Amino acid sequence: MRSPICEMFGIEFPLLAFSHCRDVVAAVSKAGGMGVFGAVNHPPDLLEEELAWIDEHVDGKPYGLDLIVPTSSVLQAGPVDKDALLGMLPGEHKQFANDVLEKADVSTSGIEDSRREHLHFTDNLTPDGAGAVLDVALSHPIKLLVNALGVPPQIMLDKGREHSVKVGALVGSAKHAAKQVDAGVDVLIAAGGEAGGHCGEVSTVVLVPEVVRAAQGTPVLAAGGIATGTQMAGMMAMGAAGAWCGSVWLTTSEAETSESVKEKMLTATSADTVRSRSRTGKPSRQLKSAWTEAWEAKGPKPLPMPLQTLISEPALRHLDKLADGGHQGAKELSTYWVGQAVGLMNEKETSGQVVQRFKEEFIEAYERLTEALGE
Amino acid sequence: MRSPICEMFGIEFPLLAFSHCRDVVAAVSKAGGMGVFGAVNHPPDLLEEELAWIDEHVDGKPYGLDLIVPTSSVLQAGPVDKDALLGMLPGEHKQFANDVLEKADVSTSGIEDSRREHLHFTDNLTPDGAGAVLDVALSHPIKLLVNALGVPPQIMLDKGREHSVKVGALVGSAKHAAKQVDAGVDVLIAAGGEAGGHCGEVSTVVLVPEVVRAAQGTPVLAAGGIATGTQMAGMMAMGAAGAWCGSVWLTTSEAETSESVKEKMLTATSADTVRSRSRTGKPSRQLKSAWTEAWEAKGPKPLPMPLQTLISEPALRHLDKLADGGHQGAKELSTYWVGQAVGLMNEKETSGQVVQRFKEEFIEAYERLTEALGE
Repeated sequence: MRSPICEMFGIEFPLLAFSHCRDVVAAVSKAGGMGVFGAVNHPPDLLEEELAWIDEHVDGKPYGLDLIVPTSSVLQAGPVDKDALLGMLPGEHKQFANDVLEKADVSTSGIEDSRREHLHFTDNLTPDGAGAVLDVALSHPIKLLVNALGVPPQIMLDKGREHSVKVGALVGSAKHAAKQVDAGVDVLIAAGGEAGGHCGEVSTVVLVPEVVRAAQGTPVLAAGGIATGTQMAGMMAMGAAGAWCGSVWLTTSEAETSESVKEKMLTATSADTVRSRSRTGKPSRQLKSAWTEAWEAKGPKPLPMPLQTLISEPALRHLDKLADGGHQGAKELSTYWVGQAVGLMNEKETSGQVVQRFKEEFIEAYERLTEALGE
Repeated sequence: MRSPICEMFGIEFPLLAFSHCRDVVAAVSKAGGMGVFGAVNHPPDLLEEELAWIDEHVDGKPYGLDLIVPTSSVLQAGPVDKDALLGMLPGEHKQFANDVLEKADVSTSGIEDSRREHLHFTDNLTPDGAGAVLDVALSHPIKLLVNALGVPPQIMLDKGREHSVKVGALVGSAKHAAKQVDAGVDVLIAAGGEAGGHCGEVSTVVLVPEVVRAAQGTPVLAAGGIATGTQMAGMMAMGAAGAWCGSVWLTTSEAETSESVKEKMLTATSADTVRSRSRTGKPSRQLKSAWTEAWEAKGPKPLPMPLQTLISEPALRHLDKLADGGHQGAKELSTYWVGQAVGLMNEKETSGQVVQRFKEEFIEAYERLTEALGE
């Protein structure tokens, strides 16, 4: 296909797959799209291991990496004092999380101890930690570095240039798009409010044309709500240079998602997600469950990042394990980030099958327009 | 263009224009689309006058009518006791509305008296009132009757059949779409959460394909966020049979919108709307203003329909007049329903120019896909 994205990365089909699962990343790149590994929570040694695995399995095809490298952060002043962070967690929040679990007959033993294990992600939010992760990343043949939160810091843009790695950024408004273009990013990912994970309020169908106008020629990938090739074609008709999808891979056979959550996603409609602060402290879209409903109805006010994550994540990981073991209460509570596109994800596929389906649906969409125009 | 919507109504271009302004309705129908007059607040005599005007000015082109005919309503038990309704308005709400105005140096004199004038819309919500409006409607050559709220009552479906008038309905979820199809509607309007006025939470880009799947062949119009022909083409690529637009007409030279609000809309971005219960009691999307911000921040809990409307509407109409007279405080408070598409509405056009622009942009979108596919 002809697209600035295909030219930029030497790929056949401008479909980018954001995934925390290395198998998905490699499979999509091999199928003609491009996988982008989400490495937000990886310490350098684990990232090295994951990228080495991808290098071995991607048949030399291009892939990318998604990081959170904040230009400013409360954690900026050197190494993170983990004990101090843990000490900042209010008893009220821990108690509420425990109460929700206990009401569903889920034991909370071990959760408190596991909070410390979840702390390593905070290292990546400091300049030193982010620098170490960037060094690992750039020692691999990545083709794209994406910053998931705000304008990429100068070090990311500079190191990207130095290694001929393109730099991209997610944006949720036309105003932010203009700032990113001024900063010199190579690709904008316009992510609508229907997207899974952290998201804004402007929807994809409005945001994409608005960002294309603001982008002054910088290629724009459409993100948020896209789970089919007809939607991808539709967004490209509106001026996008391709699509960036995250949710659609979560129900593939390769995905990291727990079996219990996969089952829920396959039967969910688009109305079964909620945009809530209860998982990370910032609004993020996720599958509705007894857990999200409890927090929405009666939860204490979510804490600022990264504290709320230290409340929710250990409990949710604990639930995933129990749910996959067949615990009914844990099944009802379990949840994961996903966008409204979940309503269109009704069949279990491999990641390669998803890419192939997108290609076929893209052609169908084009033929539909051809017929409408009587050409 | 070839579309089930073009065949159904004998129109050239499947763009439907929802408007409270008869001039917009006539202009769009004459330009090759189809205007749909929003007559929610019209008593039978005024509706007769408006439709007679359209008949005189539409050059025999087809047009439609949008009503709210609820299948059930709190007002169902006969004629509305207007004094009783006015007596149900809590002092707290009236006082809050007045305080917001007075803080902006806006006199509140006359507002209390004008509440009674705003009461006539409640007549249309009763079965007798709705029947009278339907009788007026069907004495004109309308081609489409749309119910804006829920499944059309049997009388609307029956009378539509009898007069060879197609019946449509707005839906915000796939589940509601299935119910509408079972009830026998001829056209579904899938309205995403980015739409102006009453709206759900599922976005257009997800809702349209989901509703198309649920519609079992019933044609689906895409609504919510659409202000350009490229977006219309994109939605038709995803399976829509055409587009239904409301916001895009609000900044046309014909529109009923106050000059002050028109100016605000032309400079607003997509982030400048809010989905709030403060106008009607149900979530509706409107332009952010000092009024909506005051209600969101500190307003009393919105009242159920139709009471909240009797609080807000008299105050807002009062503000429109003062704002157009140059009152600065009133300008800052003034607002109107509009969708996120407002971010794409940056130039004043006539309604006919909008239709023409949509046609040209539709072709551009198709050519963009043709080029991407290298065909």
